Amino acid sequence: MIDPSAAWERLAAHLAPLPTVELDRRRAAGRVLAEPLTATLDVPGVDVSAMDGYALTAAVREGDRLPVTGRIAAGDAPGRGLADGETARIMTGAPVPATADRVAPVELTDGGDREVVFHEGVPAGAHIRRRGEIVRRGRPLLEAGAPLTPGALALLATHGYRTVPVHRPPRVAVLVTGDEVVPPEAEPAAGQLRDSHTDFLLAAGRSLGLELAELGIVGDQRQALDRRVREGLEADVLLVTGGVSKGEFDFVEDVFRRAGCEVLFDSVAMQPGKPLIAARHAGGFAFGLPGNPASVMVAFWLFVRPTLRRLEGHADGYWHGALEGRLAAPLPGAKGRDRFLAAEVGFAGGRLRVKPVPPRGSHDLAAYARGSALVRVPAHAAPALAGARCEVLPLADWRGVILPSSDPV
Amino acid sequence: MIDPSAAWERLAAHLAPLPTVELDRRRAAGRVLAEPLTATLDVPGVDVSAMDGYALTAAVREGDRLPVTGRIAAGDAPGRGLADGETARIMTGAPVPATADRVAPVELTDGGDREVVFHEGVPAGAHIRRRGEIVRRGRPLLEAGAPLTPGALALLATHGYRTVPVHRPPRVAVLVTGDEVVPPEAEPAAGQLRDSHTDFLLAAGRSLGLELAELGIVGDQRQALDRRVREGLEADVLLVTGGVSKGEFDFVEDVFRRAGCEVLFDSVAMQPGKPLIAARHAGGFAFGLPGNPASVMVAFWLFVRPTLRRLEGHADGYWHGALEGRLAAPLPGAKGRDRFLAAEVGFAGGRLRVKPVPPRGSHDLAAYARGSALVRVPAHAAPALAGARCEVLPLADWRGVILPSSDPV
Repeated sequence: MIDPSAAWERLAAHLAPLPTVELDRRRAAGRVLAEPLTATLDVPGVDVSAMDGYALTAAVREGDRLPVTGRIAAGDAPGRGLADGETARIMTGAPVPATADRVAPVELTDGGDREVVFHEGVPAGAHIRRRGEIVRRGRPLLEAGAPLTPGALALLATHGYRTVPVHRPPRVAVLVTGDEVVPPEAEPAAGQLRDSHTDFLLAAGRSLGLELAELGIVGDQRQALDRRVREGLEADVLLVTGGVSKGEFDFVEDVFRRAGCEVLFDSVAMQPGKPLIAARHAGGFAFGLPGNPASVMVAFWLFVRPTLRRLEGHADGYWHGALEGRLAAPLPGAKGRDRFLAAEVGFAGGRLRVKPVPPRGSHDLAAYARGSALVRVPAHAAPALAGARCEVLPLADWRGVILPSSDPV
Repeated sequence: MIDPSAAWERLAAHLAPLPTVELDRRRAAGRVLAEPLTATLDVPGVDVSAMDGYALTAAVREGDRLPVTGRIAAGDAPGRGLADGETARIMTGAPVPATADRVAPVELTDGGDREVVFHEGVPAGAHIRRRGEIVRRGRPLLEAGAPLTPGALALLATHGYRTVPVHRPPRVAVLVTGDEVVPPEAEPAAGQLRDSHTDFLLAAGRSLGLELAELGIVGDQRQALDRRVREGLEADVLLVTGGVSKGEFDFVEDVFRRAGCEVLFDSVAMQPGKPLIAARHAGGFAFGLPGNPASVMVAFWLFVRPTLRRLEGHADGYWHGALEGRLAAPLPGAKGRDRFLAAEVGFAGGRLRVKPVPPRGSHDLAAYARGSALVRVPAHAAPALAGARCEVLPLADWRGVILPSSDPV
């Protein structure tokens, strides 16, 4: 049994971004840029007006009156000259005539159509955005490793990138084990229960922008499990739930080994989620997650999520992104292992208010369903009172359920 | 011109969740439950073992030896009796025989197959999860207003909900205006620029789980704009970019009014994003966003996002979810209006480290492309030094780009 952060280090040593693929720009949201990209044009492309106003060839003073000999709109071709002593009405973003040296904002004039009277002067160069002042063609635009946020995609649209080199998103497969497990559509007989792991993992994967493949449910028979695991190892990451304890039907670790996996760890000093298997093979990774919902959730957020994000090119790690919060309700203590509880998170004065939802056992799915974050109780920590500091990991990836959307608790 | 929070209040007064629809459970991630749901079964469904071990009908003491007369696996039908003086091997999650009153974990025995020797006794009731101990059929499961996190969907799978009553996601349409704007696929002539707003808004919308409809680009002609706006108002929310300043081609506000909209505000005391129009009509809402990328982004995150989330049933508001951070670089001051800058956010000791990316003008898309959060400079605030506190709004919605995935800055 190893410490969670030591377990993560052992796993992380083998994680590297997947190879580069060219994705259509509009399908690249959330991916990570695999190569640096450069500007394909000067921004702005020509000298343009930064304001609605009047283009001028020289200084004006309060009370000066000039004839308005043209109007220049955004999108007009540049190059039209402006004679000395004339002015042209010019719109924001419109090209500044070659002979003009400044723009007087309309607010500083009487706004005249044929003639305009200036209420005050403007210095040379005023309200002109110079060609290439933001970026010059050929200069760096985005670095390799940049996450493709909406803003980054907008930038790439401006520069006409139709496709984008990104790290290939991992293919992930989900296999649920257990004789007692029936699909969600089935009516469970006495002693059976419906699969919840597939729904959780598919939705959690989608929150990372990944469509996980569903391999269904396999009973606790070694041969069947062996066959399905070998199928699943075709994916970059195989997630198997159940069959990882020390019970006599807990074949998963052995099946992983026989299928050519190197088991990196099979027991982590945490609660829930202790019997957690991480393995690697030539073509990817496999996880054996304990068969109870609380353990599946905690193991996913703490180990599977950063694994998938490393493969995508992000830099996540174990417990990375945890923030200090204040307890809004007491937090139970922990014995010899780090303990993780679901928590509802709200905001108060720029701080996270954290309300732990202690489960009534590792099968208490409802507690983890309510939580929008995980709170950590370090091994051997005593119970803490409301108002005390705590460590909280917002599970922000599912469309802002937590940040920035929770109500104050 | 009104204060941003007053503007939001004026808008929020008209925002209510959209009507209820039944969505397939697996398509409901991120939506908000519109009606309370109850448990459809007892959890656990029968008394089950919490451990791998031996079912017992009475107390045992250290050294006791009993015959093992059966083995009960998870998924077996319950009801088989166990005679006094016998024991049965039982797996985690397996139904406890009706006559058994406790389970001895395998770790407290010699693990025998035909006979088992107990190393210590266990109290009555030990390691049995009682039927309905987590939840009883008919009892509340999730409240109306609950966000459908992966955990919540797992819970609904367990209870066999195939469809889920949620607030209908808003239909949102994007219309870009401007004679100078060409599609991203086009080669811009001098004075033209490629549309970046559509890419930004589509990706930002997708980060909220919404597929925005693209209405394309319309030039600065009143009639054409009028026709396209009326089409766009068929959506629940219409987003128009450009044409909202006081220039002579800035028709949007007038077009909104002629189309039957009530303009709620058209100028907000913030930078960027001052000439921002919010309007409502019988069938929904319309926004006129300024035509520069920085303003589109800031206006989207501060006003459009909470609007869409209110319609979905969330409780977001203006600047809701902002956290206290520490500046990792100086922050410029603000004049008479709240100022918003893009920022890169990292983590250090449970705190957010915030590195503002001051733009070189509102057309500096690159600055906003790099930022993963917005930092606020309150109106009249003096410049702040590195190390000072700041207010930061993580833009967490796009698949965890910020929380919890950023590298330390």
